[in-house]
Amino acid sequence: MTTFTTLRVSLLCAAIAAGAAAAQDAAPDWAESRWGADDEIGAANLMTPERVKQAAGLVTDGKVYSLGMVVGSDTPAFPPRSLSVTVFQPNQAENDGLGSNKFTYNDDIFMGWLGIGPQIDGLGHAGVDHMYYGGRTYDQFAQASGLTELGLDKLPGLVGRGVMLDMASHYGVDMVEEGAAYTAEDIQAAAEAQGVELREGDIVLFNSNWMNLLDGDSPDPGRFGAAEPGLGVSGAEYLAEVGVMAVGADTWGMEVVPAEVEGEAFRAHQILQPENGIYILENMDTRELAADGVHEFLFVLGQARLKGAVQMIINPIAIR
Amino acid sequence: MTTFTTLRVSLLCAAIAAGAAAAQDAAPDWAESRWGADDEIGAANLMTPERVKQAAGLVTDGKVYSLGMVVGSDTPAFPPRSLSVTVFQPNQAENDGLGSNKFTYNDDIFMGWLGIGPQIDGLGHAGVDHMYYGGRTYDQFAQASGLTELGLDKLPGLVGRGVMLDMASHYGVDMVEEGAAYTAEDIQAAAEAQGVELREGDIVLFNSNWMNLLDGDSPDPGRFGAAEPGLGVSGAEYLAEVGVMAVGADTWGMEVVPAEVEGEAFRAHQILQPENGIYILENMDTRELAADGVHEFLFVLGQARLKGAVQMIINPIAIR
Amino acid sequence: MTTFTTLRVSLLCAAIAAGAAAAQDAAPDWAESRWGADDEIGAANLMTPERVKQAAGLVTDGKVYSLGMVVGSDTPAFPPRSLSVTVFQPNQAENDGLGSNKFTYNDDIFMGWLGIGPQIDGLGHAGVDHMYYGGRTYDQFAQASGLTELGLDKLPGLVGRGVMLDMASHYGVDMVEEGAAYTAEDIQAAAEAQGVELREGDIVLFNSNWMNLLDGDSPDPGRFGAAEPGLGVSGAEYLAEVGVMAVGADTWGMEVVPAEVEGEAFRAHQILQPENGIYILENMDTRELAADGVHEFLFVLGQARLKGAVQMIINPIAIR
Amino acid sequence: MTTFTTLRVSLLCAAIAAGAAAAQDAAPDWAESRWGADDEIGAANLMTPERVKQAAGLVTDGKVYSLGMVVGSDTPAFPPRSLSVTVFQPNQAENDGLGSNKFTYNDDIFMGWLGIGPQIDGLGHAGVDHMYYGGRTYDQFAQASGLTELGLDKLPGLVGRGVMLDMASHYGVDMVEEGAAYTAEDIQAAAEAQGVELREGDIVLFNSNWMNLLDGDSPDPGRFGAAEPGLGVSGAEYLAEVGVMAVGADTWGMEVVPAEVEGEAFRAHQILQPENGIYILENMDTRELAADGVHEFLFVLGQARLKGAVQMIINPIAIR
Repeated sequence: MTTFTTLRVSLLCAAIAAGAAAAQDAAPDWAESRWGADDEIGAANLMTPERVKQAAGLVTDGKVYSLGMVVGSDTPAFPPRSLSVTVFQPNQAENDGLGSNKFTYNDDIFMGWLGIGPQIDGLGHAGVDHMYYGGRTYDQFAQASGLTELGLDKLPGLVGRGVMLDMASHYGVDMVEEGAAYTAEDIQAAAEAQGVELREGDIVLFNSNWMNLLDGDSPDPGRFGAAEPGLGVSGAEYLAEVGVMAVGADTWGMEVVPAEVEGEAFRAHQILQPENGIYILENMDTRELAADGVHEFLFVLGQARLKGAVQMIINPIAIR
Repeated sequence: MTTFTTLRVSLLCAAIAAGAAAAQDAAPDWAESRWGADDEIGAANLMTPERVKQAAGLVTDGKVYSLGMVVGSDTPAFPPRSLSVTVFQPNQAENDGLGSNKFTYNDDIFMGWLGIGPQIDGLGHAGVDHMYYGGRTYDQFAQASGLTELGLDKLPGLVGRGVMLDMASHYGVDMVEEGAAYTAEDIQAAAEAQGVELREGDIVLFNSNWMNLLDGDSPDPGRFGAAEPGLGVSGAEYLAEVGVMAVGADTWGMEVVPAEVEGEAFRAHQILQPENGIYILENMDTRELAADGVHEFLFVLGQARLKGAVQMIINPIAIR
Repeated sequence: MTTFTTLRVSLLCAAIAAGAAAAQDAAPDWAESRWGADDEIGAANLMTPERVKQAAGLVTDGKVYSLGMVVGSDTPAFPPRSLSVTVFQPNQAENDGLGSNKFTYNDDIFMGWLGIGPQIDGLGHAGVDHMYYGGRTYDQFAQASGLTELGLDKLPGLVGRGVMLDMASHYGVDMVEEGAAYTAEDIQAAAEAQGVELREGDIVLFNSNWMNLLDGDSPDPGRFGAAEPGLGVSGAEYLAEVGVMAVGADTWGMEVVPAEVEGEAFRAHQILQPENGIYILENMDTRELAADGVHEFLFVLGQARLKGAVQMIINPIAIR
Repeated sequence: MTTFTTLRVSLLCAAIAAGAAAAQDAAPDWAESRWGADDEIGAANLMTPERVKQAAGLVTDGKVYSLGMVVGSDTPAFPPRSLSVTVFQPNQAENDGLGSNKFTYNDDIFMGWLGIGPQIDGLGHAGVDHMYYGGRTYDQFAQASGLTELGLDKLPGLVGRGVMLDMASHYGVDMVEEGAAYTAEDIQAAAEAQGVELREGDIVLFNSNWMNLLDGDSPDPGRFGAAEPGLGVSGAEYLAEVGVMAVGADTWGMEVVPAEVEGEAFRAHQILQPENGIYILENMDTRELAADGVHEFLFVLGQARLKGAVQMIINPIAIR
């Protein structure tokens, strides 16, 4: 559709120019990416053949773990996110299908938000005061019709060494409580106790057994969504220093809620995403890895490469 | 929502009973699955630890191939399928975001069909006269609110040995023409010439360079969608006999169009899916594998596990 | 999009031909519309200038009644229907809007089914064994991409003499109970007692106060959706004989549920729609008309003329 | 869904408080509505029984005009707005329908934006630097899950005296050109020449024959959407002074584009909506009224009362 476009673009120009000017004045240090001004994939640059090959070497048993929980219209979601799936049989109500071989088929429609259930936050998701990874201001890439930069179509996937840290085991509890913040010290202690070292390019997943609130013996989805244990500020800074590729957890928001500092909101998201180009994975079902005591594995995520998408429902595969 | 339900269920009973009765009379041989009457994952049962371990052993270089093409509202789709992505910033138009740390974020909504672009056909997709894998009749599982059986939520993912057969090379052309049917003989000859053996549990991908019609030097999306080269009937029967886990191709429909027999439609889909429980992968971008001459690799697909979904936009990862 | 189309059309031909042949064998008497074989608007043909002028003459007080209840994601709906509205501010998160005059705006997206809340059933909605108004079989007009005939885009609107029959008053109850069927005798008796005559071209609305279950003192949405009082079979036949233009009610389905004859479902829909071309209006809030004792009025419905749509959320206006 | 809510509300508080404080400092004169601080329907308050009764008196011939053009996925829309309709037959592919009477039915899903084609802009649509009718700031009512104030669910409908001014006739052209601004003088001159007086509470519609670009002999949808003739700033001020209830036109945006003052955007929207509480109607097909020379009529709009909706696709009815 070429209609309307010229008009709209010219009207936006003044606003964008003004916004960009304002932004440049205030550009923080992190606005400059270590992978260059044009980079759109951040820490995914760490996915080198050497690291991939080493990660593949972690496959010793051939056991496959499906980290994406099943997601449906009843999955707790950050408001006002919702979704629905509708199944139908286009043009097949009265007949036996297409052709002499009677080909019938079901199709489906999805209506809803992509940030529900097991999900990846692309680098266009989290920002600081409308500034995003690489110092991009909102006006520069976040069009209503889809991200023009940082969309998940740019990311080929994430393959590497997965590390699972069992925080329930670290704290000596069945399920970590809401508000428990994983600090740099916690992470280091857990890694040491669980015999695993964190390295540049890793995908680090935290297990808290928080998903027992959804499908355990005493489900409490209200509690599941009201708060959560998770990554703290010093923990996020530590993981950025190590140079991991992605951080995931078995909670809806990956980081601790309520925040450690009253009045702050999702500060770890900001440290990881805009400030360091690190991917975030939420609602990762790490419980079977924890039950098996698997702390190192080949991690493979191939998210759908939807043009301009911010988030995506995913199902990463762990293989050990 | 509990309203309406009792009413509707009772009204449906007669229809379902009648349908089931009719279906049982006519149950074809294939209605009985080799994996048992309750099986919902078909050939994914072949994903054994032993095979996964062997497939991981194929990783020699650590090179990652992203098989899912980028998909957007302009991707050619089987009518009337369409999709859109909309990006926005919930509740952030006038403010600096959430909390004292000014957390801002982009979110996105997807509206459309799941069978667009790179996609997996779950076992609930293709049928013969309204009968599906395991002899399930439409009334037994294809609810408008989502498949109650055979949904892609049931499939943990597909991991195994990937095999790429380069049919352009087999036919000695830059791009295979529409209407070219891959017969059993073609497949055997291509495999032998390309030094690769097909085995039970494999994921077999055919390369035709058909996607050059989308992004090549002379794009012709109309031709892309009007027909295609692909799997023929004897080829499908051969792959079912070998016992592969999935069959994919770099075309929108995987199998040859127009069909080999006039008046038939998507017969290979029927041989693979309802009759043998084999998964189908469409619009797989195999060109880089072909360019590199990679015929064996570790194949990892983790599709989003959306409850009751028939198809899903995917991005399988090949690693060699 | 011209791609795919030729293919699909040719494949459908056999199916359609077969279906049409089968249908013609069995064409019932009602398949021939009194308004001709090509007619797409049925009883809306009765909307003559003379009748409209007379209806306008019923406006004596200038009081406006909004018959469409407020509808939202929490409105009870026939499964699996659902809807959502999302509001956002395209491209305005970081700026002051468009132009030097700072034009900001909210926009909204609707995802869901059109048959929720106050709704009109177009003549493409209800059928008998896949045959619809004018003897059209499903294959002939009900494309997945929208109805090619009988869509609500064809209907200019409905304007005429509205008649409200207060069935709660007729039965001498505060709210009519589920299962109560309005027979021909009931309708004639209510009309006579309430001093109003039914005429050709009327829009007849039945008041039962059933909506008190949604917003009354003791709301019970479960009961609201589980059954309902409403039009019975003899009542539907009587209204068809009178030659009304539309029949509405303050219930989700207009007709009595459970049906008068065990095992039947929505038989009155069939009498009115396919067999007589009469429109159906559901979830009409007639309570204020009843409270005011208004039995005759100018009725004006201008439904959105969405191309190929079957149903539409509406808000008819009554003026007395 | 009660999960997540407490968290989110508390995080939003600081942002809202800050925003509100900033807004109050700068509250312009117009922020105070003449209908009181709590008013949500603006000029619809002018819909008095007396005016409605007088408007009904304008019906002399009983001719019905359907002002809403047919709208579909091919209707030009302000980017990135789009829509689709999908028709299907829930749970009916293999059977004869519900019950012994074989009840079959079509249903439909709508995915898309409500601001397409013939539409009403509710009072929550247009603002000045994120401030809306009654001085409401964005944070106070424009939730992503739907407007909490000013939604179209609050508006019962619009009934009154419709006035059509034929601007093509006024300028003596077949179709008014883009960029032509209707000034106060134009409006007064056109009204006088066409023998009609503008009064408080009127719904004023401007005819330019601009829709000939969509369905005329030489359709040019690109030109249709690239610009338009329409209401100018002095014209908007004049109509606000007269105190009309709504202003409509046969163009996609009602007001002149490009704007009279370079760099301004949709200034007339601001004068009418936030500053005066007047409704805007777009893509109104006024051509038949113009062809018939009908300048006064009964106008009836019953828009669907969707909870929290900003805009709505409509089909107002004119009766003369």
